[in-house]
Amino acid sequence: MSDRVVRDADYEPKIRASFDRQKAMALMGARLGRIEPGVVEIELPFSDEIVQQHGFVHAGVITSIADSAAGYAARTLMDAGSAVMSVEFKVNLLAPAAGERFVARGEVIRSGKTLTVCRSDVLAHQGGETRLIATLLATMMRLTDRGFED
Amino acid sequence: MSDRVVRDADYEPKIRASFDRQKAMALMGARLGRIEPGVVEIELPFSDEIVQQHGFVHAGVITSIADSAAGYAARTLMDAGSAVMSVEFKVNLLAPAAGERFVARGEVIRSGKTLTVCRSDVLAHQGGETRLIATLLATMMRLTDRGFED
Amino acid sequence: MSDRVVRDADYEPKIRASFDRQKAMALMGARLGRIEPGVVEIELPFSDEIVQQHGFVHAGVITSIADSAAGYAARTLMDAGSAVMSVEFKVNLLAPAAGERFVARGEVIRSGKTLTVCRSDVLAHQGGETRLIATLLATMMRLTDRGFED
Amino acid sequence: MSDRVVRDADYEPKIRASFDRQKAMALMGARLGRIEPGVVEIELPFSDEIVQQHGFVHAGVITSIADSAAGYAARTLMDAGSAVMSVEFKVNLLAPAAGERFVARGEVIRSGKTLTVCRSDVLAHQGGETRLIATLLATMMRLTDRGFED
Repeated sequence: MSDRVVRDADYEPKIRASFDRQKAMALMGARLGRIEPGVVEIELPFSDEIVQQHGFVHAGVITSIADSAAGYAARTLMDAGSAVMSVEFKVNLLAPAAGERFVARGEVIRSGKTLTVCRSDVLAHQGGETRLIATLLATMMRLTDRGFED
Repeated sequence: MSDRVVRDADYEPKIRASFDRQKAMALMGARLGRIEPGVVEIELPFSDEIVQQHGFVHAGVITSIADSAAGYAARTLMDAGSAVMSVEFKVNLLAPAAGERFVARGEVIRSGKTLTVCRSDVLAHQGGETRLIATLLATMMRLTDRGFED
Repeated sequence: MSDRVVRDADYEPKIRASFDRQKAMALMGARLGRIEPGVVEIELPFSDEIVQQHGFVHAGVITSIADSAAGYAARTLMDAGSAVMSVEFKVNLLAPAAGERFVARGEVIRSGKTLTVCRSDVLAHQGGETRLIATLLATMMRLTDRGFED
Repeated sequence: MSDRVVRDADYEPKIRASFDRQKAMALMGARLGRIEPGVVEIELPFSDEIVQQHGFVHAGVITSIADSAAGYAARTLMDAGSAVMSVEFKVNLLAPAAGERFVARGEVIRSGKTLTVCRSDVLAHQGGETRLIATLLATMMRLTDRGFED
């Protein structure tokens, strides 16, 4: 769908360093997974600390990993010196977030000079089965301001 | 805009008990604030544990309080025995989440038998000033399944 | 992604008859294309009557065909007697709508008893080339009220 | 909510001229209404030509006027030489679009250098009563490319 041209050969260590600064991800228990041009995955094991009132993972937590995965997917195709900011996103919650482990897979749909549009699908893994539980559609913005540099 | 008919006189203690079961809210440091027909507020003090890579509060955390505020706002106008589930939401992030304290104000736009549409505005408070940093537009669903009862 | 169980063997003629009642589609010049379980396509030739101020097709027109394609895709998997209503949708406009012809391909992501989540991708065709110009993510509702029956 | 600074004193005639080039608006029967800093209204009388299968106005048509109203609201606060492009929008359809006349009121929530976030509420007027039937939340982009100049 999208031409996935890499403009910054060092994108992977930069994304890993940036993710380590996302304390919210550590708080929720999220870990960075696969990183490749246009695609980033974030994994989240289930824990009692991230649930909503019915014992499923909170929609906001699922959205958090989907948003970060989408943002870093956008970053894989940006110039050196770029930072990413979420402009907006929309999430459809397709099923209760029940499972042992969740994987948000962020993917670039369209990479532009200023704006990048991404999708994140979140899969729940439970007992060898997987289920799509959420899909996010996001607009990401490239920042060049030094203060925001990753 | 919306006729705010209360159908369950005990909505407030039920919402407070439900919020206490949202462990994700406690993990992030969020607290339930004002509750009235069609409106629920959730407060979040800044902490180093909920930031993204640039030191602002993570968009997913801001979304989490906005989503919960919207969901509970919807719940204030539902029948006894109802539980709320987020079907989908869209967030526009209007400014970096910088501040001492954040307040998400969820409000019902339209209350229907099955679906309720809500808006949440998130204000950042810093040094006596407030700033709108995010707005969320959500569809909430009423569940009557006993397993989901609040 | 979604189990595409057909519950109404006559979905195709019903969708064709319903589309013919969508006078807005005729006004814009849209035509129904491929119909199969979980997928419906709507085609729109370029015309000077559907443009915005820069001569590209209006975002609202592109959204109209994407919405109708998504709604009818949802209908392919519903019971006899069901009608579809758009609850909400979100569209990202990825490129100006320039082209000879546009095709919106609506597809079911998750089919539920009450709600169906669909995606529509809109491709522009020009001189043998195709380009993704918009993607829509929608929530559709099944109506059983006789007054709404298709 | 938003500081409404006018940067182009001639915004109104430019918006009126731009609207006249939106042939899609004329096709649907839409007319430009009130224009003031940060706010633009578009009116649409009911007609049999813009309906969906149940006789209500098509969601895509309602979205079209909401989108144009939001885009022109954004334009009221931009520099001379600016043009507006819809990046994305999300619409919640709150009630069937039944009525004699519909008014989309676009309003700026946040005006930025590159991106402007707007809301549009669509009211249906029928027999002296009004009803909120849709609300749109949109991201608009300022273009400075001469080719896009309004």
